[in-house]
Amino acid sequence: MGTLVLLRHGESTWNAEGLFTGWVDVDLSTTGEEEARKGGRLLLEADVRPTIVYTSVLKRAIRTAEISLDEAGLNWLPVRRSWRLNERHYGALQGKDKAQTREEYGEEQFMVWRRSYDTPPPKLADDATYSQVGDRRYADLPPELMPRTECLADVVARMLPYYYDAIVPDIAAGRTVLVAAHGNSLRALVKHLDGIDDETIAGLNIPTGIPLVYELDDNFAPRKHGGEYLDPEAAKAAIEAVRNQGKK
Amino acid sequence: MGTLVLLRHGESTWNAEGLFTGWVDVDLSTTGEEEARKGGRLLLEADVRPTIVYTSVLKRAIRTAEISLDEAGLNWLPVRRSWRLNERHYGALQGKDKAQTREEYGEEQFMVWRRSYDTPPPKLADDATYSQVGDRRYADLPPELMPRTECLADVVARMLPYYYDAIVPDIAAGRTVLVAAHGNSLRALVKHLDGIDDETIAGLNIPTGIPLVYELDDNFAPRKHGGEYLDPEAAKAAIEAVRNQGKK
Repeated sequence: MGTLVLLRHGESTWNAEGLFTGWVDVDLSTTGEEEARKGGRLLLEADVRPTIVYTSVLKRAIRTAEISLDEAGLNWLPVRRSWRLNERHYGALQGKDKAQTREEYGEEQFMVWRRSYDTPPPKLADDATYSQVGDRRYADLPPELMPRTECLADVVARMLPYYYDAIVPDIAAGRTVLVAAHGNSLRALVKHLDGIDDETIAGLNIPTGIPLVYELDDNFAPRKHGGEYLDPEAAKAAIEAVRNQGKK
Repeated sequence: MGTLVLLRHGESTWNAEGLFTGWVDVDLSTTGEEEARKGGRLLLEADVRPTIVYTSVLKRAIRTAEISLDEAGLNWLPVRRSWRLNERHYGALQGKDKAQTREEYGEEQFMVWRRSYDTPPPKLADDATYSQVGDRRYADLPPELMPRTECLADVVARMLPYYYDAIVPDIAAGRTVLVAAHGNSLRALVKHLDGIDDETIAGLNIPTGIPLVYELDDNFAPRKHGGEYLDPEAAKAAIEAVRNQGKK
């Protein structure tokens, strides 16, 4: 059958500043741009050639796709975008400092908001600075679809219909599909692909900028559990680093 | 009805070197990148907001779209690409020095190849250095569709079906459609829109990096003949400059 290549965007300006981002449309940092270029080089070196690319509607994922495909000489690929591949909406935490939030609410609450499968942060008010209500890119969404906060379970629920309806037909056609997206939308996809339970997914981190390749069988199940990173050593080191993120 | 915004890519590395380019996939020069950014700023200042973008499958048009939309805060727009929006295939002239070609073949032949409506340059051999036969991006084209050379009449013939089938329905839906493409694919489109005859089109130049806006009526005809450039003064100066290109 086809191949799925997952690529998590690199460092954004708000990652660098330690702020909760979610649906806020921040750009890549210079480091993030370099990570995207490295992702493109890894595709090239491994001769993994996507034939179509999917992105969220957030700049940091879109530019990651653009930069890595430019590096791989694949600017011309057909592109499709969907809000369903967006990062988790971080609710009232969007725009807040991570370290401050931990201090203010304590480690336990902080980790619940970051890692609980089904407990979302408080909702973001529609008139809040970092609300996306009214943003033209979401003009086609009926109000009841527009999130004000999300837990990972919410991301799974809104991401999967797009995976089934848009991406799976491309896999069925034997394509190699690049999905340039976010930590949590990709965790949601990996949870589905590898059949990871609601507890275990909390401990799963996907490193930035390193393509993760899943060969899928006739039932759209991974031939190899967990897929394969194109740079396994770097992936291992990065997974450790993400796991320690936010720790003192 | 809808709005068409035409954007010709800025200077490429081969423009800068004075080489015939056609379907050769050269990148923008630094000047070309700056022209793309300027195009994006003009959209922003005029409050012209595309809702979908079309590009050729050539890097210089794709990157022009990416850079100008990034500047306009519109990275997230849906994108469609087609080889039917590509630059004119320049046949055996691809990769040749323009000034040398003029000297070798004389001014008259040179101008026929550059500006004749229906006389294409000699065909490019499939095994020539700058042939695109075998390029993966054209893998879906049956051999009889793959050009080996084109005159402007050929560009009109292969571009129009895509305009009618893909772009017109977006215009009918009231969208503002950005088409980021090339000197000759855009001349072909303007010829059609403004009903320019085969002689007169020879004298029509479209400047790079300045969005050209056509409001279309219920019959998909321009409300204003020739449309409107977002920076009319700069467009006028640039048209003069292009007209003199290749002259001593």
